Amino acid sequence: MHLSEITHPNQLHGLSVTQLEKIAQQIRDKHLQTIAASGGHLGPGLGVVELTLGLYQTLDLDRDKVVWDVGHQAYPHKLITGRYKDFHTLRQQHGIAGYLKRSESRFDHFGAGHASTSISAALGMAIARDLKGEDYKVAAIIGDGALTGGMALEAINHAGHLPKTNLVVVLNDNEMSISPNVGAIPRYLNKMRLSAPMQFLSENLEEQFKQLPFGETLTPELSRVKEGMKRLAVPKVGAVFEELGFTYMGPVDGHNIAELISAFKEAHKHGGPVLVHVATVKGKGYEIAEKDQVGYHAQSPFDLETGQKVPTNKPKPPGYSKVFADTLITLAEKDPTIVGITAAMATGTRLDLLQAKLPKQYIDVGIAEQHAVTLAAGLACEGMKPVPVIYSTFLQRAFDQIVHDICIQKLPVFLALDRAGIVGVDGPTHQGMYDIAYLRCIPNIVLMAPKDEAELQRMVVTGVEYDGPIAVRYPRGSGYGVPLMESGWQPLEIGKAEVLRQGEDVLLVGYGAMVYPAMQTAEILSEHGVEATVVNARFAKPLDTELMLPLIDRIGRVATMEDGCLMGGFGSALAEALFDCKMTPDLLRLGVPDELVDHASPDQSKAVLGLMPAQMAERILQRFELGNVSLELAEQL
Amino acid sequence: MHLSEITHPNQLHGLSVTQLEKIAQQIRDKHLQTIAASGGHLGPGLGVVELTLGLYQTLDLDRDKVVWDVGHQAYPHKLITGRYKDFHTLRQQHGIAGYLKRSESRFDHFGAGHASTSISAALGMAIARDLKGEDYKVAAIIGDGALTGGMALEAINHAGHLPKTNLVVVLNDNEMSISPNVGAIPRYLNKMRLSAPMQFLSENLEEQFKQLPFGETLTPELSRVKEGMKRLAVPKVGAVFEELGFTYMGPVDGHNIAELISAFKEAHKHGGPVLVHVATVKGKGYEIAEKDQVGYHAQSPFDLETGQKVPTNKPKPPGYSKVFADTLITLAEKDPTIVGITAAMATGTRLDLLQAKLPKQYIDVGIAEQHAVTLAAGLACEGMKPVPVIYSTFLQRAFDQIVHDICIQKLPVFLALDRAGIVGVDGPTHQGMYDIAYLRCIPNIVLMAPKDEAELQRMVVTGVEYDGPIAVRYPRGSGYGVPLMESGWQPLEIGKAEVLRQGEDVLLVGYGAMVYPAMQTAEILSEHGVEATVVNARFAKPLDTELMLPLIDRIGRVATMEDGCLMGGFGSALAEALFDCKMTPDLLRLGVPDELVDHASPDQSKAVLGLMPAQMAERILQRFELGNVSLELAEQL
Repeated sequence: MHLSEITHPNQLHGLSVTQLEKIAQQIRDKHLQTIAASGGHLGPGLGVVELTLGLYQTLDLDRDKVVWDVGHQAYPHKLITGRYKDFHTLRQQHGIAGYLKRSESRFDHFGAGHASTSISAALGMAIARDLKGEDYKVAAIIGDGALTGGMALEAINHAGHLPKTNLVVVLNDNEMSISPNVGAIPRYLNKMRLSAPMQFLSENLEEQFKQLPFGETLTPELSRVKEGMKRLAVPKVGAVFEELGFTYMGPVDGHNIAELISAFKEAHKHGGPVLVHVATVKGKGYEIAEKDQVGYHAQSPFDLETGQKVPTNKPKPPGYSKVFADTLITLAEKDPTIVGITAAMATGTRLDLLQAKLPKQYIDVGIAEQHAVTLAAGLACEGMKPVPVIYSTFLQRAFDQIVHDICIQKLPVFLALDRAGIVGVDGPTHQGMYDIAYLRCIPNIVLMAPKDEAELQRMVVTGVEYDGPIAVRYPRGSGYGVPLMESGWQPLEIGKAEVLRQGEDVLLVGYGAMVYPAMQTAEILSEHGVEATVVNARFAKPLDTELMLPLIDRIGRVATMEDGCLMGGFGSALAEALFDCKMTPDLLRLGVPDELVDHASPDQSKAVLGLMPAQMAERILQRFELGNVSLELAEQL
Repeated sequence: MHLSEITHPNQLHGLSVTQLEKIAQQIRDKHLQTIAASGGHLGPGLGVVELTLGLYQTLDLDRDKVVWDVGHQAYPHKLITGRYKDFHTLRQQHGIAGYLKRSESRFDHFGAGHASTSISAALGMAIARDLKGEDYKVAAIIGDGALTGGMALEAINHAGHLPKTNLVVVLNDNEMSISPNVGAIPRYLNKMRLSAPMQFLSENLEEQFKQLPFGETLTPELSRVKEGMKRLAVPKVGAVFEELGFTYMGPVDGHNIAELISAFKEAHKHGGPVLVHVATVKGKGYEIAEKDQVGYHAQSPFDLETGQKVPTNKPKPPGYSKVFADTLITLAEKDPTIVGITAAMATGTRLDLLQAKLPKQYIDVGIAEQHAVTLAAGLACEGMKPVPVIYSTFLQRAFDQIVHDICIQKLPVFLALDRAGIVGVDGPTHQGMYDIAYLRCIPNIVLMAPKDEAELQRMVVTGVEYDGPIAVRYPRGSGYGVPLMESGWQPLEIGKAEVLRQGEDVLLVGYGAMVYPAMQTAEILSEHGVEATVVNARFAKPLDTELMLPLIDRIGRVATMEDGCLMGGFGSALAEALFDCKMTPDLLRLGVPDELVDHASPDQSKAVLGLMPAQMAERILQRFELGNVSLELAEQL
């Protein structure tokens, strides 16, 4: 059987280990070819090929449930659940998603994109099963990184208190690279633990103990000794899980299908909450990726032979993340109170640059956004200037901490929201759509967004100098290549917008990444004889009503442009301000309507949402009944 | 020295244990008298009197930092840090707050109200200290309940990786009531662990092991044996902490000042992250509270002799929480797929009633709101109808899970937000102000709020029957005493408002708890010759524009009323809808402005915010220049 013939994972049932190993190789080949061609998550999927095949040999996916944490390691799962033929469309518009999605396949039992959710979801499924009196199996697969997320720990704590609820948690541990020597003992000991010799060891020990001083006194506590002994065989994580009520099994060699099948079978038999600790190698089978696990976690298209990125046609200007990090470093070199904080996204946020340059002023807390934010609050109490740099979508995890620990206490924490707005190929779970709305409602916070990377630099200065809660949002990807700041590192005045263009027919107010598109829209409008004033809002809170309201009063027509949700967003802030001042111009709010935005390139997403400059120009002309609405443009929509 | 003379905790330095015990008794007396008179958190403070005194003997609060988790157990702290004289004003408007507040005292080093934040904040302070090259001590005090919160576990995981960062975490464990017998061994063993005999035991054991089968093979692993041995002396929590990199000390008798002082001294000396496990009795020293720890966690004024509530003048109608729970139970009796979920708030949410009646359809996950919500998502995947019942303010913790696990996947989870709106005496950390704004921006969710407890019943039916994400918010406290539903358990039509009163001068749109006040406002307006139409909006999302827009078109003046933040809230939704339809009436949004609302009675808070019916009537008359603005009313403001 070839991989291409497999549309249901149960087709693999009954294959020999040798046959499964061939399928594993075919999965790796397809996986590598696809990601080399179109980009995506490389290392995570390669690491779990055998884990997936081994686990699915012990499950009936028509009945049993499987929950993959984050979902980016589930490409092998996708390849054996009916998506082989379309796999070349990975992360392309209308193609296969880069994460799991319940709407994409009946075998995607739970969607994900953010880390640490799988045990909660799987436990919910297991409890539902028991309430319904059914008996299918439920398994969650979680990475060692995701295990540090607080909600995973909450779930483990809960599951550990339910000894009758059968649940298998598979810990995909790629931090623990077993070399043949070091690995032998734990593997050997694990086998012991599950069979007779370990039992013997424990019994024997009980006797030994009676000979020790305090031996008699200790008797009531002796049952704990056995537990202590087990831990001989168990690395740190195992001990913690055992204490929390799980049965620990492992570590298992995550690239040995036979061993995996036998471990999973044992786990399903055992009952109650079971942790199977599987040691995997990220990027397994592709030597270049094995050697650089961080670099090959996810990437753009590359040459399979060399591992080198496919060169793009033209050099790109530096990305927002890099400009942010470089600017922060420049400031931090002069100000030792500045501390950058990342939640396991050092390379994504480019705080790795800060780490390299000023390691003392850098903290990586792991996948733990809640802790990152309150840690920052604690630092701020003691005179430091903490700067948590977190993707907009992941900062959702720390909403309460922003309210409760930062804003209520008015502490000077500077939140940097990377990947704000439309993120493109990562899809709905990763869109940075909601931050304007969810932050705007909190008292005491200042919200800003730069029009380009040079203004981001000004905002970094502003954020660091401001004595209170303040946040900046900036988009994924490259800036515009504008000249970066060399001198005059002055902060912006809080709450002050700027006028970029004059025109009396319509006012365009852009926020952040939508300011340049607003300017382009103005140019298109001008071709239609409509002249626009363009304002770079800079701040969503406080809003520069002093500058904007007189303009609106004079012009009478205003369009806001934002790359975030319209519900409660930037345009909503202006709508509130207008009614509050009894002003009733014609207001058109352009942004992301109240729907999910699927994976696609950012420009494809914008086109779907009507947010490309030509589309916005047309929507403005139509709404305000201005100029000659171009039929050509209308047809493009 | 009498407690009343103490304005600085350092005044207690050098007192003998006997003298401290006298102070302890004075703290208890004052604490009991005050809470009996004015209500508040009783048990938590009584449990930590000795812990506070013992800890502060080892700290210099001018330099050292102390972070109390939640803050409701910090009344003894308040009594020895300059607030004795004003303590009778506890939880009263302009009086002493029920939680810690940086703005209230320089000894409140970190404010709190929500659980599980203290270790993060304290670690931030400790890291700041080391970066600044200073050497003060930092201690966090956290309860065993708060320890299940994910962010506390994130912080522990981080702190455990920083062996050079001195931090003392005090675990105030009131689950573990040490009876003299059971407690003796652990206490004894703990002493062993910190001194010579334990060392001897470990060394000796090493020898013993060499005699065992596999003894030689195990040698490389032998260092772990000592760790295993330590665990003999250490209850479950200790083992987990040790594995995570903390030094564990305890359990210590939390009501023995001498033992506490010696343990804390040892902990400060030790270095690195240290956990001191203190066993306390909630309500200690007040027998009635010791016996009913749940009942006396927090309460309204009561008789000290009998422990009975001071009877109020008139019987109150049933509270919203009880009506919610009773209705849910009625439905759950017929529908076994309904599962109520609480995050450690069984009595507050009245889900204890569900637990008593249908224990299988009830889940308490502990303080773990994130897990609660994603667990619900998992249950929903498998055909259950999960109903997480969580205070509005605590649901902030699960914002990301609502977006990522429920709304993106359109799962039928029914979120019940108790204590939504102005909560009164608990103050800023507990106000349920933001939920309309932070939920409204998420696609696929339905938001509703009932005008009274009978409508809440209809909404429970609606929420349970709706096939998608849906949330209801309802206020703290009693309903209006309207007749409850006996038959006709029909759901409401999603997104449909109702007209309660007709009038052509102004339209009042109330949402949830502000509908009755809207009716009262209309009556006052009527006295001024102004006739109002009143709409009960019922839904904030989707908004019933079909009903409201024609009314607004006709009347031209509209005031929205909500007991939540105006930024992005209900009125903001209407503002958006109006501009979207090119409608420009005069819109007045009444609600909570962009500021924190301090502790006070709910009516006092509303008066401060101008949200009492007479005030709203006046604001409406002034804004719309209607009727004869009453000077009397103006003077009342």
